[in-house]
Amino acid sequence: MATNLRIDKERLWSSLMDSAQFGATAKGGIRRLTLSDEDKAVRDWFKAACEAEGMTVEIDALGNMFATRPGTDPDAAPISFGSHLDTQPAGGKFDGILGVLAGLEAIRTLNAAGYRTTAPLTLINWTNEEGARFAPAMMCSGVYAGEIGLDAALATTDNDGKTFGAELDRIGYRGTEPVGARRFGAYIELHIEQGPILEEEAKTIGIVTGGQGILWFDGTITGKDSHAGATPMTMRHDALAALAEVILAIEAIAFDHAPGGRATVGEVFALPGSRNTIPGTTRFKADFRHPDAAGLTAMEADLNARLAAIATRRKVEIDLTPVWRKDPIVFDPAIVGAVAAAAEKNGYAARDIISGAGHDAFYLASTCPTGMIFVPCAGGVSHNEEESTTEDECAAGAQVLLDTILEVDGR
Amino acid sequence: MATNLRIDKERLWSSLMDSAQFGATAKGGIRRLTLSDEDKAVRDWFKAACEAEGMTVEIDALGNMFATRPGTDPDAAPISFGSHLDTQPAGGKFDGILGVLAGLEAIRTLNAAGYRTTAPLTLINWTNEEGARFAPAMMCSGVYAGEIGLDAALATTDNDGKTFGAELDRIGYRGTEPVGARRFGAYIELHIEQGPILEEEAKTIGIVTGGQGILWFDGTITGKDSHAGATPMTMRHDALAALAEVILAIEAIAFDHAPGGRATVGEVFALPGSRNTIPGTTRFKADFRHPDAAGLTAMEADLNARLAAIATRRKVEIDLTPVWRKDPIVFDPAIVGAVAAAAEKNGYAARDIISGAGHDAFYLASTCPTGMIFVPCAGGVSHNEEESTTEDECAAGAQVLLDTILEVDGR
Repeated sequence: MATNLRIDKERLWSSLMDSAQFGATAKGGIRRLTLSDEDKAVRDWFKAACEAEGMTVEIDALGNMFATRPGTDPDAAPISFGSHLDTQPAGGKFDGILGVLAGLEAIRTLNAAGYRTTAPLTLINWTNEEGARFAPAMMCSGVYAGEIGLDAALATTDNDGKTFGAELDRIGYRGTEPVGARRFGAYIELHIEQGPILEEEAKTIGIVTGGQGILWFDGTITGKDSHAGATPMTMRHDALAALAEVILAIEAIAFDHAPGGRATVGEVFALPGSRNTIPGTTRFKADFRHPDAAGLTAMEADLNARLAAIATRRKVEIDLTPVWRKDPIVFDPAIVGAVAAAAEKNGYAARDIISGAGHDAFYLASTCPTGMIFVPCAGGVSHNEEESTTEDECAAGAQVLLDTILEVDGR
Repeated sequence: MATNLRIDKERLWSSLMDSAQFGATAKGGIRRLTLSDEDKAVRDWFKAACEAEGMTVEIDALGNMFATRPGTDPDAAPISFGSHLDTQPAGGKFDGILGVLAGLEAIRTLNAAGYRTTAPLTLINWTNEEGARFAPAMMCSGVYAGEIGLDAALATTDNDGKTFGAELDRIGYRGTEPVGARRFGAYIELHIEQGPILEEEAKTIGIVTGGQGILWFDGTITGKDSHAGATPMTMRHDALAALAEVILAIEAIAFDHAPGGRATVGEVFALPGSRNTIPGTTRFKADFRHPDAAGLTAMEADLNARLAAIATRRKVEIDLTPVWRKDPIVFDPAIVGAVAAAAEKNGYAARDIISGAGHDAFYLASTCPTGMIFVPCAGGVSHNEEESTTEDECAAGAQVLLDTILEVDGR
């Protein structure tokens, strides 16, 4: 089953740079929020590119896009691969996008060589991987896997109160296929590492063996609005000073659960929002990670205890709502082995790695044999307009993706 | 010069409740931001009410409104009084509004009695006292007094980038009178205390002897955006965790300068604003108060030292811009004495008090003999939709305002 098919490095890079025009920012990044006009534009472009390669593009009821190339055995379960084309509000050119366009490059390489796989191949663009506009992240692969409800997903609102369903209709990407109707024989996702490990150890390929668990909370702190000049310091119920303690407590929890624990407050709002009014209401959105389920649970217990103490001492109310929990996952040994074989065949320096970020592959893992491939990104920087992966690194990832697909197909 | 003119309690309350319709919120407060549609509506209503009382309403180049009732001596310097009709984003029905409408009630009482003062009387609605939409507060009395530049005021932008000048044109309140062209023989401002002291001591009238100094800063913290899941805790440059320390440092500075010091962070912004991205940039707006100029200066020095330490330890940059300083002020003894005499004449329990909040009277004090009258507000709560002052308290304040005007006129 070994082949000598080589992906086209320049062609891959060219399609990456073409896609970066949709939502391009002045600083060289991308702002392409889920179901925005920019998301619609990149979807239209991607659909046309797949159809130009003879693929059939189908859309499910959440806008997940499936582009299929037939195999020689119509009864074989399709081998799937891909990632996502949406970005963070100030995101980069590679996060998600590389996995989709490397998949397109694999198809182009097979087409150019006239090579037919046994199983059909399905290239996927998952809707709303980022969760930046509509929480949670990986929402639509979550519904696909049956772990998130379809109606709940459609009813999710952004900060302006717009629903996911209405925005999906607005951009014309609500398809008729029931979510989760199609199943695959395998799912393989190439992604940038979004962390510093591969770069530090000079490895080209990360053989991803599993992923951290994730826990998300929304919080509201209620104190009392009052005048900044006329209210004595001792009579305040300052919801922002309380939030400041919450932010530092959340950071401290991660250090208390080192080295696996990570915790971040990414969004805050202070109301009514006037310099000379003590904020009476604040809101925050927090993200916790741990490689072990027990660690995640312990962090949650610590959070509840610390917040209760702050609420009592500060004389404010703190309401905490868990909005999402994704337990740590372990990828399929056969797919992990195929990735390792593909890396070795190409002579790339590689190492096993646990994913710090969440990916659609985490949900797919409950539906079919799943694995991931990482390539380095400069400084480990991601979710940032400066996100950077070289042309050679992208090409290496795409080559390993193609060879993994062929390895899985050949079994 | 003593008269027995009595203001009409019901008429005053009725006009307060009428004005509360412009920008009314569901919780019984008011959202009437400077130069908004609601601000225009209350101005139109106020102008018509003044004209119905035979007053001449003139508008200066910043939209400050001057309604004049002639006196018997056309050469006498007018006695002025008033306050502001704009509110905080979630403000109450009395802050500023009471001072304007009690002035209107004084005029109505004089008209009903056919009583002519010697000096002309000028009732004023100052534009943008709150500073909530366009910083700083008391902007237009500040320009009137020559302490803020006209062009700077007109060029001030709100959080959406709209300029004060363009919004003034949009609502049709840019007048032709040069700002500061008219001068007064006195200025008297009635206001709710916005603090808890009068209520706690069961006093009806606060004889305001002066006001705290105020210092405003804008701050920006620059760290580095990166992925919340993939970035180790030890490799972060988290601009929001740094902001949390800044908020707590600012609070601590106020306690270090007790009992006079007060400090508040009222607005914060975290960018890019995504739960699973470590914020790379945060902004904050802070307010410091102290009854002594030296105390204010010492607080500023403490702030710079503490922020430098946080920036170094957190490996972020913190840029701090002073946007406004108003030194503490002392009101004119003759006006303060007239307020005390008016309170005593009416048998109201009264005490001397220093204003915790800033007021347009602070700027007027540099242009003519100036004083203020305070009435209690429930729980000392202000800058809040629950702000509450009773019908009797409002009436007492209006009566003392009228009697102070007559006392000053009779000298």
